[in-house]
Amino acid sequence: MKKMELNSGNTIFKKGDPADGLYIVGKGSVGIYFPTNHTMEKPDIVLKANDILGEMGVIDTAPRMATAKALEESVIIFVSTKEFEKKLEGSDMIVRGVMAILSERLRDLQKRR
Amino acid sequence: MKKMELNSGNTIFKKGDPADGLYIVGKGSVGIYFPTNHTMEKPDIVLKANDILGEMGVIDTAPRMATAKALEESVIIFVSTKEFEKKLEGSDMIVRGVMAILSERLRDLQKRR
Repeated sequence: MKKMELNSGNTIFKKGDPADGLYIVGKGSVGIYFPTNHTMEKPDIVLKANDILGEMGVIDTAPRMATAKALEESVIIFVSTKEFEKKLEGSDMIVRGVMAILSERLRDLQKRR
Repeated sequence: MKKMELNSGNTIFKKGDPADGLYIVGKGSVGIYFPTNHTMEKPDIVLKANDILGEMGVIDTAPRMATAKALEESVIIFVSTKEFEKKLEGSDMIVRGVMAILSERLRDLQKRR
């Protein structure tokens, strides 16, 4: 896990970036901008402390599908895919099984869109 | 958890049944029949030992979306939503967070279809 301190406007990831983990908002707020948001004046989603972003990065190898920027002075925690997989290994077998099924189904549904 | 012994053709759940947990195939095989499968001669999906079925039952309160039947003498394990939630409580906070996001997103995507 890696702690990152960001200023307002700092980019966390951009659409198309390779995805190798997820982020947790520790302090401050983060805006998510969908590819359809051309002006990028207002974020499509605002995330606050304890919210998770980029979670598809730990269940998929597809590049980032949106752009994320700090909306103010913020602290975010990066959890790599490897670190997440270790956490998952410590979970109950049935929890792991359900996580695997949900991930697969989400990937399927997103491919079809 | 509840162990159930089934004979070939026994129904595990039917489309429209209330959903209060998931099932794991312990022995034998289970067929899943989608609502579009009118003759129900052949299952749309065949599940074998260690496969999970009815997993939407632990993340949603919607009724079953398909029908499941034993295809031969089979043993299946029922895990109630409550039991699953207890297992999840034992998981890492980040694992729980990702599970919650994936569940929410799947519910959203399935509502829109």
